[in-house]
This record gives sequence, C-alpha cells and structure tokens, in this order.
Amino acid sequence: MPYFDSASSAPLHPVARQALQAALDEGWADPARLYREGRRARLLLDAAREAAADAVGCRPDELFFTSSGTRAVHAGLAGAMAGRRRTGRHVAVSAVEHSSVLHAAEGFDVTEVPVDRTGAVSPGDFGAALRPDTALAALQSANHEVGTVQPVAEVAGVCRAAGVPLLVDAAQSLAWGRVEGDWSLLTGSAHKWGGPAGVGLLVVRKGVRYASQDPADERESGRAPGFENIPAIVAAAASLRAVREEAAGESARLRALVDRIRARVPELVPDVEVVGDPVRRLPHLVTFSCLYVDGETVLHELDRAGFSVSSGSSCTSATLAPSHVLRAMGVLSEGNVRVSLPPGTAEGDVDRFLEVLPGVVAGVRTHLDAPVSPGPYAGTGADAGTLVVDALGKRCPIPVIELAKVIGDVPVGGTVTVLSDDEAARLDIPAWCEMRGQEYAGEHHVEGGTGYVVRRVD
Amino acid sequence: MPYFDSASSAPLHPVARQALQAALDEGWADPARLYREGRRARLLLDAAREAAADAVGCRPDELFFTSSGTRAVHAGLAGAMAGRRRTGRHVAVSAVEHSSVLHAAEGFDVTEVPVDRTGAVSPGDFGAALRPDTALAALQSANHEVGTVQPVAEVAGVCRAAGVPLLVDAAQSLAWGRVEGDWSLLTGSAHKWGGPAGVGLLVVRKGVRYASQDPADERESGRAPGFENIPAIVAAAASLRAVREEAAGESARLRALVDRIRARVPELVPDVEVVGDPVRRLPHLVTFSCLYVDGETVLHELDRAGFSVSSGSSCTSATLAPSHVLRAMGVLSEGNVRVSLPPGTAEGDVDRFLEVLPGVVAGVRTHLDAPVSPGPYAGTGADAGTLVVDALGKRCPIPVIELAKVIGDVPVGGTVTVLSDDEAARLDIPAWCEMRGQEYAGEHHVEGGTGYVVRRVD
Repeated sequence: MPYFDSASSAPLHPVARQALQAALDEGWADPARLYREGRRARLLLDAAREAAADAVGCRPDELFFTSSGTRAVHAGLAGAMAGRRRTGRHVAVSAVEHSSVLHAAEGFDVTEVPVDRTGAVSPGDFGAALRPDTALAALQSANHEVGTVQPVAEVAGVCRAAGVPLLVDAAQSLAWGRVEGDWSLLTGSAHKWGGPAGVGLLVVRKGVRYASQDPADERESGRAPGFENIPAIVAAAASLRAVREEAAGESARLRALVDRIRARVPELVPDVEVVGDPVRRLPHLVTFSCLYVDGETVLHELDRAGFSVSSGSSCTSATLAPSHVLRAMGVLSEGNVRVSLPPGTAEGDVDRFLEVLPGVVAGVRTHLDAPVSPGPYAGTGADAGTLVVDALGKRCPIPVIELAKVIGDVPVGGTVTVLSDDEAARLDIPAWCEMRGQEYAGEHHVEGGTGYVVRRVD
Repeated sequence: MPYFDSASSAPLHPVARQALQAALDEGWADPARLYREGRRARLLLDAAREAAADAVGCRPDELFFTSSGTRAVHAGLAGAMAGRRRTGRHVAVSAVEHSSVLHAAEGFDVTEVPVDRTGAVSPGDFGAALRPDTALAALQSANHEVGTVQPVAEVAGVCRAAGVPLLVDAAQSLAWGRVEGDWSLLTGSAHKWGGPAGVGLLVVRKGVRYASQDPADERESGRAPGFENIPAIVAAAASLRAVREEAAGESARLRALVDRIRARVPELVPDVEVVGDPVRRLPHLVTFSCLYVDGETVLHELDRAGFSVSSGSSCTSATLAPSHVLRAMGVLSEGNVRVSLPPGTAEGDVDRFLEVLPGVVAGVRTHLDAPVSPGPYAGTGADAGTLVVDALGKRCPIPVIELAKVIGDVPVGGTVTVLSDDEAARLDIPAWCEMRGQEYAGEHHVEGGTGYVVRRVD
C-alpha cells in the first residue's frame, strides 16, 4: 500500500523511533530542575540542539524548538515584525508561501510577490516589492505543492542589500540539505523529515531584531512557551541527522523516479499538465493536473487502488477554493494530483502507480461524461459565432467539461461564454485555453456568477 | 532513587507508553487527508477526544488539543478576553495562579484576588473583585506549589451570577478527578498526569464567547494551530483514563503518606513551617519551609541522598525572587521544599526521606552557622533597646540568620532592625516573626535597601 504523500507527513524514521524510545526513559523531567532527572533531560536537550543546529547550519543558541512548524512560522513572523515595528508594518512574501506564512501575515500590510508558471519568484520581482517600511520578507526554500525550489540565496542577497531580514520556511527542504544564503530567520517541521509530530524549529540569527509576541516564559529563551517536549525533540534531531546521511543517495534515486513520472504521465494520460520546475525542484515531489476530472474522485479511486496521494484541487478542499499556489502559477487546478515519495520508495511501486493512473483518470472521465481527447477540434457548422453555456451551480470540473464539449460547435473566431459561480473556473478556464491552444478573452460579471469568454482559435 | 517532583513532570505512565507505541504506527499521517492513513489518524484523534472529554466532563466538540498546558492557558485566556472585548479588559485572577496564567494576563487590567495563609481564595473576595468591565476570571483547581484546593464550584457560582466566565487551570488536579462547578473554560497538561510532553487540553464550553488570537488554521477548529500530534494525544488520553481508574485507591494511599510527612517533618526538624491547607489539598503534594537554610543547598544535598524535590525559595531561582505563591500566602520562603509523590510511590521511600531530611537540614544550618534552636530566647542584658544588623548584600537565608542570632541581645520590648536588599527578606522576616512569636513592626527605606524592624515580645 504505497504512501505517496510525504510532503504532508512522513512516516516515522526508524532512527527517530529508537531515539524516542530511549528519550522517553531519560528525558521526561523538567530540564530546568537541578536534580539528576532534570540534569539528564537538560543534557539530552542540549545535545539535540547541537545536532539540529549543525544540520541547519547555525549556532545552537540561534535555534529554538517549537511545538510545530506552524508555530515556528507564526512565532517567527510575529516576533520579527515586532522587532522591526519602528520600520513599518509591511511584509513581502511570495504568492506561493505555505498557508501558515500567509495566515501569520494577515493583519500586516502584505505584498505578494508573483511567481512564474513554474512557481518560482524572481529575485528582481522580490527586490521590487521591498519598500522603506518593509519590516520583513518571507520566502519558502521550496514549494510544498509543486516542488519548485526558490532562489533563496539570491533573494537573501537582495533583502540584505535593502536591510530587510528574510524568513525562510524550509519545511519541505530541510531533509535534503541546508538552506544556502544569508537568510535571517528559518523555520522547519520535524514530521516532514521523518521525525515525530510536535516539534518545529525556529532559527533566529544573532543580530536579527526580534521581540517574541507570546506571553513571557522562561523556556527556549522566551521564544517558544511551554514545557519542552524533549523525547520528541531528541527523536527529531536524530532523524534529521539520519535523513541527511541518506540524502545524497536517496535524492538521486527519488529524482529519477520523479523524472519517470514527469515523463510518463503525459504519455499515458491525455489532457494532463505537469506543473512545477522540471529541474530546479525537490527530488521527491511532482504535481500534475488532469482536465475533466474531479480531484476528490481521483484521490478516492487511487486510494482504492492502494495509493495515497494529495491534491490541491478545489474539489477536495473544505473551502471550495482551488490551491492558492496553482492559482498564483496560473496553471490548471482541476484533477490535481501531488505525488511526494517518502525515502525508500520502491521503484516497483512507482511503476504500478503509472500502470493504475490512466485507468483511474479514464474511469472518472467516463463517469463525468467528459469529452474524449483529442477534444472537439473537428467541430464545424455552428449556427452562430457565439455560444453561451450555463454552468451556474455546477462545480469543478463540470464547467470546463461543458466548455470542451461545445468549443467545436463554434467556428474559428467564434466564442463560447461559460457562466459559472465556481471559484475554480476562474483559474481552470484560462488554464484550459493555454493547454488547448484556444484564446481566453476575459471575464465579466453576470447575474449569479461570472461569464468566462473563450475564442476558438484552433 | 525516589523522584518526588511529579508536580513538575510525571514519568510516563506504562499505559501511555503502550498507546504511544501503537499510535506511532497508526497515527502519523495528516487526519485531514482522505486516504487510509489519514482516515486511521482521524479515527485515533476522534477516539482520544471522546476519552479526554469523558474524563474532563465535557462534550467532545468543546475540547481542543494544544501543544502544551502553557499553550492552552495562553490561547484560552487570550481567546476568552478577545471574545468579550466589548465588556472590557479587566481580568480577575487569584494571586497564586501558575505563572502561565499571570503571564498571559499581562497587558490586561488585572486584579489579583488575595489568598489566606493556606493559599485559598474566598468566594467572597473573588466576587468583590468582579466589576462591570470584567471580561474573565481565572482560578486554578488546586495550587501547584502548596497543594491547596480552591473553592472552584463556589467561585464559578459567584462568577456565573455576575455574568463573568471562569477559566480553570486544572493542570495539577485532572489526574485525580473532574473539576466540579459551572466553569466556562478549562486547561490541562498531559505530562502532569503521566502522559507525554507536547499535549495540553483547552476546553471551551458551548456558548462561551471566544475569539482565537492565533493566526487562522484549520486544525482543532481553529483553536490550536499546528499539525496534530496524534501519537502523543492518543497516549495522553489513554493515560488520563488509566490514572483516573487508579485515582481512588492511589489518592487515599498518597494522602496517608503526605499526612505522615506533614506530621513528622515538624517533629524531626526544628524551625519548620508546613504550608498549605492540611485537609482541602491535593493528595500527593506537601510543601514546607525550613528557617536558616538555603533552598538550593538543601535540594542539592537531597539530590545527593537520592531524592528529587523542588523548591519555591528565591535561592533556587534565576530571578532571586521568592515564589509569588508563598509571598501571597505570607509564609516563609527560605529553605522551601516541595514534595509531590508520583503514583506508585513506595511507603519505604517516604520513610527514608524522613530519615534523611533532618541530617540534611542540620548540615546546611551548621555550614551557614545558623542559630541553634530553640533560638535566643534566653538572651538578656543588651546595652540598649535597639540593635541594627547590616545584612546588605547578603542573600537568603543570611538576613534571617543574623536576626535570629541577635534577637536575644535586646530586652523584651526592644527592637532589632535588619538592613537588607534581598527580596526574600520582605517575606521571610515577617514569616520568622510569626513562627517565633515576635512582633513585626514594619519596614522603612534605607540607603541601598530596606530596614525591617522586629520587636522582641518573647
């Protein structure tokens, strides 16, 4: 039963399990106490901090253990903004940051730096977003949904030149190596690298202005309130060291498997868009979107076939909004599938996934009565140059399916207007046009929704 | 090597260890995911919530798992204050709350409700502290330093009548039973009841106005951001159920052992004050203070003798300030020792502690050249009715030792003025007077410190 969602949470590394066991016996006491149980706990905590700092590439006294990666981001962003409140309340973030960064930035004056179609920011765009009142910039080391690696070192240089500290959310990449460049703050999450849940990292470089926004607390130098979770911290540090030792070999191996998926999926499945940078990317993660399918059904069918994957489709989210990452990239969100391979993934499991996927997608398309690829290019003889498709009240992927079915009914140069009140249509109809070589001619307000206009070119 | 500091952190309960092991295999995935690993994690989380809610006495949808008891207090107090911000910014708390409550209340308009010499608030005093702009009241279920049980049900009634929600920090008592009364919010900490570190409880009763002050997050209904630590949550819930099943028997057994300590310590060690309510108290916790000794040295010597205990003396704290709990109670802080027995404590270990303690205290007193009990009552023939002792620059317990040495040198009716710049003297000199039947006649400012005036009565 292959689990291909390590970007959400990785199974516990065997080394983490061993370390946790040992530390449950040795590290349960309060490390602030002077008696032997307290001293033992303190020794374990200090050793874990040394190990984690070595893996991150910082001083031990710059690294604080938090209760999760999310908490590290929330505390780190709030503390850095407060430390520079005299400068201003502006924060520049990439448009594809993890939701924890975007939520932590709410209430401040936020500029979202755009990304290109691969999901990467450009250092120039980032620099242009910095202002005299910019207190902080934030950029992930690599994107959690599409795997694109960001130009952190270059952006850190741009920020340094502007006197703005850079916070790097390194949750997705710490397993693979240090984050290069002259960043100021860094966050991480142990359960992404095979450590247990309940441990995050917050690194604040010496000299960075920082004012914790949590109530006073003597633990972790006042930067992470609450009793230290030493057994989990010990396990987190041990597993980070272990995955780093395996990183070079495992990275090359998984990179080849992901390359196979990137190459084979578009060959095996019609009307698919593989997204994210093909080269500057995390080794273990690949994302693709399938036209005319509903992401939740695909996930369900893949689960039935034994594969656990994730999706950024609106169809699978509680909010009915498509992933902000895919939206910022301007790529298709419908039928979106993210595959993230845990260390040790067997080649045969990837091959079996490639065997199963085409049938799953085809089955969902048949069920939804999707147009048969290569689509309605042969369509002729529409009565008029204009068609209106009423898809109000219908959810992703139906509006796109309806569009694809009728595009052949208008002549080249004619238009189809799709009426939809589904948030995903705003992203997926232009993305469909891009994929199918048709022209997206804009949107306008209609009663109860939006009209999306597509001009037939091909 | 007996560990007598379960009020700081209890060793992991065997049931917690088993549950944790099992849940590491079954509960590491993201419970928001639809695939089998996610569904399994969700089932575990739901079951743990049911079990914890049953132990607390609330609905499962009123209970949220946080990353620590401290976080539960910080989030709960902030959320409850924000939920009633239209009412005002006043919060009434007992003067002996845990530091996490007092720190969370900083920045609001705080009234500290006084306690009596046993450490208990009176419902009348609590009611008198409530005002039209009181947004929240907070009262612990039992005190963490002296074990006194607070009249929570009565105070909850007073608060309910005034329309003010009551937050109960139940960290010290949840192992022993539910908190009775009509409280509105409740917090707890798993590592105090034999669960793992990294799990706290926040209960918010339906109908209580609450506005989370954390950044938006979909986990735990938005009340505890960060990836759920399911293995630890499962272990926490299992151990809470386990300690509750053992609570009746273990409570009676430990209560008898603590009664033995309460009775024997003053017989075995001269000049000792046992503090806290002798009856309305936690079953496993007792605190006493020893005149003329330095708490850190006593802890160190007890540790050498194999006993791990805690202290609220200023001598052992980084801030050089005595425990705010002992100060609020008006009892002696010097030579303070807290004994909190974990479940399963052997009777023989308690007896051995009582054998060892007198020698340890006597040794420290000899080293400090403390006055030999029963003290200088026989003193006569002072030249004048007034003596001044300069103890400036000397730390606890030296100022009290100097006082005790010379009190016999003034006639009855005469005074000794102790000059001291040690924060503990403000508490310990009046406490010494109370213990020794002398009259504390007040303090006045002197250059470089304070003059504490003691009138010889006996």
